[in-house]
Amino acid sequence: MIDFPAGFKAPFVRPSGRVADAMREVTLTPGASRHAEGSCLIRFGVTEVLCTASIESRVPPFLRNTGQGWVTAEYGMLPRATHTRGDREAAKGKQSGRTQEIQRLIGRSLRAVTDLKAMGEMSITLDCDVLTADGGTRCAAITGAWVALHLAFQHCIRSNILKVNPLRDHVAAISCGVWQGTPVLDLDYAEDSKAETDGNFVMTGSGGVVEVQATAEGAPFSEEELLKLMALARAGTGKLFEMQKVAIRG
Amino acid sequence: MIDFPAGFKAPFVRPSGRVADAMREVTLTPGASRHAEGSCLIRFGVTEVLCTASIESRVPPFLRNTGQGWVTAEYGMLPRATHTRGDREAAKGKQSGRTQEIQRLIGRSLRAVTDLKAMGEMSITLDCDVLTADGGTRCAAITGAWVALHLAFQHCIRSNILKVNPLRDHVAAISCGVWQGTPVLDLDYAEDSKAETDGNFVMTGSGGVVEVQATAEGAPFSEEELLKLMALARAGTGKLFEMQKVAIRG
Amino acid sequence: MIDFPAGFKAPFVRPSGRVADAMREVTLTPGASRHAEGSCLIRFGVTEVLCTASIESRVPPFLRNTGQGWVTAEYGMLPRATHTRGDREAAKGKQSGRTQEIQRLIGRSLRAVTDLKAMGEMSITLDCDVLTADGGTRCAAITGAWVALHLAFQHCIRSNILKVNPLRDHVAAISCGVWQGTPVLDLDYAEDSKAETDGNFVMTGSGGVVEVQATAEGAPFSEEELLKLMALARAGTGKLFEMQKVAIRG
Amino acid sequence: MIDFPAGFKAPFVRPSGRVADAMREVTLTPGASRHAEGSCLIRFGVTEVLCTASIESRVPPFLRNTGQGWVTAEYGMLPRATHTRGDREAAKGKQSGRTQEIQRLIGRSLRAVTDLKAMGEMSITLDCDVLTADGGTRCAAITGAWVALHLAFQHCIRSNILKVNPLRDHVAAISCGVWQGTPVLDLDYAEDSKAETDGNFVMTGSGGVVEVQATAEGAPFSEEELLKLMALARAGTGKLFEMQKVAIRG
Amino acid sequence: MIDFPAGFKAPFVRPSGRVADAMREVTLTPGASRHAEGSCLIRFGVTEVLCTASIESRVPPFLRNTGQGWVTAEYGMLPRATHTRGDREAAKGKQSGRTQEIQRLIGRSLRAVTDLKAMGEMSITLDCDVLTADGGTRCAAITGAWVALHLAFQHCIRSNILKVNPLRDHVAAISCGVWQGTPVLDLDYAEDSKAETDGNFVMTGSGGVVEVQATAEGAPFSEEELLKLMALARAGTGKLFEMQKVAIRG
Amino acid sequence: MIDFPAGFKAPFVRPSGRVADAMREVTLTPGASRHAEGSCLIRFGVTEVLCTASIESRVPPFLRNTGQGWVTAEYGMLPRATHTRGDREAAKGKQSGRTQEIQRLIGRSLRAVTDLKAMGEMSITLDCDVLTADGGTRCAAITGAWVALHLAFQHCIRSNILKVNPLRDHVAAISCGVWQGTPVLDLDYAEDSKAETDGNFVMTGSGGVVEVQATAEGAPFSEEELLKLMALARAGTGKLFEMQKVAIRG
Repeated sequence: MIDFPAGFKAPFVRPSGRVADAMREVTLTPGASRHAEGSCLIRFGVTEVLCTASIESRVPPFLRNTGQGWVTAEYGMLPRATHTRGDREAAKGKQSGRTQEIQRLIGRSLRAVTDLKAMGEMSITLDCDVLTADGGTRCAAITGAWVALHLAFQHCIRSNILKVNPLRDHVAAISCGVWQGTPVLDLDYAEDSKAETDGNFVMTGSGGVVEVQATAEGAPFSEEELLKLMALARAGTGKLFEMQKVAIRG
Repeated sequence: MIDFPAGFKAPFVRPSGRVADAMREVTLTPGASRHAEGSCLIRFGVTEVLCTASIESRVPPFLRNTGQGWVTAEYGMLPRATHTRGDREAAKGKQSGRTQEIQRLIGRSLRAVTDLKAMGEMSITLDCDVLTADGGTRCAAITGAWVALHLAFQHCIRSNILKVNPLRDHVAAISCGVWQGTPVLDLDYAEDSKAETDGNFVMTGSGGVVEVQATAEGAPFSEEELLKLMALARAGTGKLFEMQKVAIRG
Repeated sequence: MIDFPAGFKAPFVRPSGRVADAMREVTLTPGASRHAEGSCLIRFGVTEVLCTASIESRVPPFLRNTGQGWVTAEYGMLPRATHTRGDREAAKGKQSGRTQEIQRLIGRSLRAVTDLKAMGEMSITLDCDVLTADGGTRCAAITGAWVALHLAFQHCIRSNILKVNPLRDHVAAISCGVWQGTPVLDLDYAEDSKAETDGNFVMTGSGGVVEVQATAEGAPFSEEELLKLMALARAGTGKLFEMQKVAIRG
Repeated sequence: MIDFPAGFKAPFVRPSGRVADAMREVTLTPGASRHAEGSCLIRFGVTEVLCTASIESRVPPFLRNTGQGWVTAEYGMLPRATHTRGDREAAKGKQSGRTQEIQRLIGRSLRAVTDLKAMGEMSITLDCDVLTADGGTRCAAITGAWVALHLAFQHCIRSNILKVNPLRDHVAAISCGVWQGTPVLDLDYAEDSKAETDGNFVMTGSGGVVEVQATAEGAPFSEEELLKLMALARAGTGKLFEMQKVAIRG
Repeated sequence: MIDFPAGFKAPFVRPSGRVADAMREVTLTPGASRHAEGSCLIRFGVTEVLCTASIESRVPPFLRNTGQGWVTAEYGMLPRATHTRGDREAAKGKQSGRTQEIQRLIGRSLRAVTDLKAMGEMSITLDCDVLTADGGTRCAAITGAWVALHLAFQHCIRSNILKVNPLRDHVAAISCGVWQGTPVLDLDYAEDSKAETDGNFVMTGSGGVVEVQATAEGAPFSEEELLKLMALARAGTGKLFEMQKVAIRG
Repeated sequence: MIDFPAGFKAPFVRPSGRVADAMREVTLTPGASRHAEGSCLIRFGVTEVLCTASIESRVPPFLRNTGQGWVTAEYGMLPRATHTRGDREAAKGKQSGRTQEIQRLIGRSLRAVTDLKAMGEMSITLDCDVLTADGGTRCAAITGAWVALHLAFQHCIRSNILKVNPLRDHVAAISCGVWQGTPVLDLDYAEDSKAETDGNFVMTGSGGVVEVQATAEGAPFSEEELLKLMALARAGTGKLFEMQKVAIRG
């Protein structure tokens, strides 16, 4: 047994071995779905989410005859995307509160950077299906769905349905948290399940914030911590915007 | 018609007529429910939420034989709590995503200040039912549910089920938003539906943050705006903690 | 211990202490809901039901283009309206048979005194939500819903949607039962759960009967008993009609 | 065209051609189901209901370890039992309020004449399925279910599960109504849909009343009318008890 | 105990006592439902299925304005059609996979012999409700539904809605299986539950096959066995076509 | 325009351009899922199905304390696996009849080659999720699920839970159909939607048939055609067994 001198503090080591501001390896594969008008398979380390954008010519009732379009999202997880098998929501007959919360967040985030009026009366549904889960699935979904949406709009332009792309800006998301007192970027499942604070940050290419959700899992957090998490998120989303730019170039 | 001089800027006026950092009149009525072990009727202006705490001697399966308790919440709205009647969720056969999101938030917030191990194996369900809605119902629910929970624990102490109250701190919540470019406290429905940014802040009596949710409804917001909203929230919840102290004194 | 002489029969005492033909204290608070076109909070002792009337301009499919209106009711109970918490029907995903039975009764009772043709093609939904339950909730709901409906029709007259009030008569309801062999008026929960016979009587201001439902909980009852219960109900509803008159005067 | 003298009043004629106190032809076929422990196919004119009694050795949770049994009922209607096809409740995914109301009534009626303690801890489910509907299905169901239940108890006696039959009395039901001002017995569908008042009377062999449900479909009714309906019902159920006696003799 | 010589093989005996190619007694009762436009009660031994055909003037959305009709089927089983009571699907709130599989098969089989264009825009729903189950219910349903459908089309001709019967051919079905190594015709429940292979064959009057479904319950089966089963089915359906011809003659 | 001579018959060309007995390119990727105990991603041309096998230590109630295991399957399709987006079954709240039919078939097919007693009391759930659909998904699912199941059993052997692999034989499936009068192997979506007859054949490595389902989509088919389809299927599954052998070698 090692005899540590008094006052010794173990050096900070994340379960993933990453340094505090290191993101996992992220890859975006545009066009990953054979049939969808736009699609992107996004990976954050082991986490893998297939995002597809499907165009429909009709809008929800509250938008009929307004000339305005709609963007919405649905989220799902394959039963064995996780370490232990989860129930299939289709078999249970309802979507969990978590699923609904996440798909509402994805839809809101993408609408925040879409000019719905410029779309005309059409709907786009973003399906974000988690093939493998290892933390950060909702952030991966938002980031990948942006690419799928962009590609679907490009498809509309090529098909002469639209003249300009109604996406006004990039949007991407990343999770950050406080782990053993240290703010860290991009939590994987092992880190997320033990973090003291856990937050999701949705940001735009021009530096604005679309949504912040931060939750104390253990002790409450302070404003300072929130600001540090936000700084990490800003750096992380900055990299994601670069990858999105590459992905849509085709 | 008035002839305004060039460069004239209308003075800032909220729809409610309140100044930026003014909260609506808040009242807490402890013991408002005849049968519940703890209860509180909370009003934020016109908004009115009945919070009850119900004790059960069994815990969810994942806590059986752990000696630990559980606090959970359910949220509902009377069909005509709102300006136009909404569908009754019981008749539709399912709770909306919004309902589930809110009740998960309430439960998380209250668990953040409860020593679940000190409860022993018992469950408390916090029912938060909106009798009249005018914005801020989830924040009112959290603030009132804390009182109901505190009273239920006091009931346990009087009944010799518990020796000390497992609540470690106060928790309260308030909404803030950016309205016509100005950060304002405690949005009512008219303000909330037109705010550029809308946030809910859940804070503890000792100054920590339990949960932050901020969403850009129009243009993205900046870190500076988020900090200003948080400062307003800190002032607002400070007043709510004082009212909670009065309410539990009985 | 008291030594009773042979043949002694304990004087009749209801659990509530009331004499056989005494109703609980009843109060009607018209306009109790902020948003509804008509509303009434009704109390029968501890029992407390909020009744709201909501106007919609469309009618069910079977009435389209008939020029006729519709009145329907929905009934609910807050989970902790009762001594021990009941499941939330919205969370369970369906309304119980009891709930459906009651809301059908309320709807039928109000339609019985409404000139549906005189309404024109509009619908009114009466939401009756039990805030506190102590027996007699369906009767309280019918009695309070009549006030809410009347006020909603008055609202239509003030708004020039209607010229005359389509309500042709009062309707009110009261429960009666046989308790320890004696017919008694207005059962509270403690009495209801031990009554030998339990009935609900829905009557009109002009003395007619709209609905009778009487059930033997123990031994079957006789015609004579039914007639006695009906006489009690007639007296009880007579008082309720007076209170309704006061309530709608405003 | 016939020239009626002034003051001529058409003689009373029911749609069915029956006189006011005439019941339709009723037949009871005991043992109509191949597999059930007790069964009876009952016909009231065209109305045809198959009643089966199924024994299970377990009781609902609230009766476990009480030594007491339970009798419950389920009611259904084949989609084309009616003049125009109704939706299949299994396909719609829920039972209507009407279905639930009826099956609760059937269960209550049969429990009223059963000594649940004498059953021991067993459950009997009475399935009442309407093969053809022409009015009066719930009354036919109660009357036929009594025979099915009696036969199921006899089966228990033959199998040495019970020593005595826990049925304490007969129970039967009949509908009565006011048709063109005249109280009439046993309404068929054509009469029921135009009756001014419509009631169902559940009575016991010893002359008691188990349940009365009477509803004014048009104008309210009077006590006198209710009494006349009840007298008709008493005569009608008297005949039904005789048929039940024949049916169980087997 | 009998002392069998070496190599002795017990003579083949089916549980039903029938020889391998013997069908149970089959009866078809056309017009068994009072209200349906076409109907047939079909019995295969103890198995008893009521088939009704209901005409509606509208078609499913995908056929609107195509001038084409539709034939669909629903299948159900009374809870006590079986040896032990099954749950009522309406009460459980959903149809089992088995129910859906069977009703899809019935619909497909009848559409295979119907000239949907010759129907014009009308729908016919075939309700097949099992009153008593003893194996072979889906085959009985197909065979009886054909008669119900034919009668419904005749009804349309009599009502001048159609000029010619859109049924182009007969269709009937029979189950066959391998029992103790021997291919046998028309399995009853006792045989079906122990058969090594179990198949349903849907055939047309002109000798074609509409659907084959054969499943190995134990060891896999061979092509030869499948051919033998099909030969049995051909003989069996041949007899059923004769009965159908008699049934529609009326 | 080409001027064809009389009697000219266009040479047979499948939409896919394949000759009648050509299968699409098939690839099996074992271990495609990060977390599952066994998994296989299987592709038939464009069709892509992810099959995972998840082990649980408990069995369904009817197998408790029998020492026997269970294998079951669930099937799903990503909403945009298809040419046009389909509704998400989890959002609709129920699985379609088609989904249930397919997952029952997969489960049956795998159980046919598994020695359930040799498994001991454990359950394996095979999740077959279609990522891209282009015909033949249920056959791909069966073929891929066999690999996933085999790998899961190998995992049990490595973990000392089992000594021998309970799989007694291979099982694979392939669709065949009649296209323009010619029997063809392995229909893709374009072929399947226009085939006159469409069948699925589930076969074992030792040459037996586990399940045959053949349906006439247009005119009925003959025995000869069924035999030709089965011969094609035998050849096709022969190749699939070879690929399975390679896949499990790892």
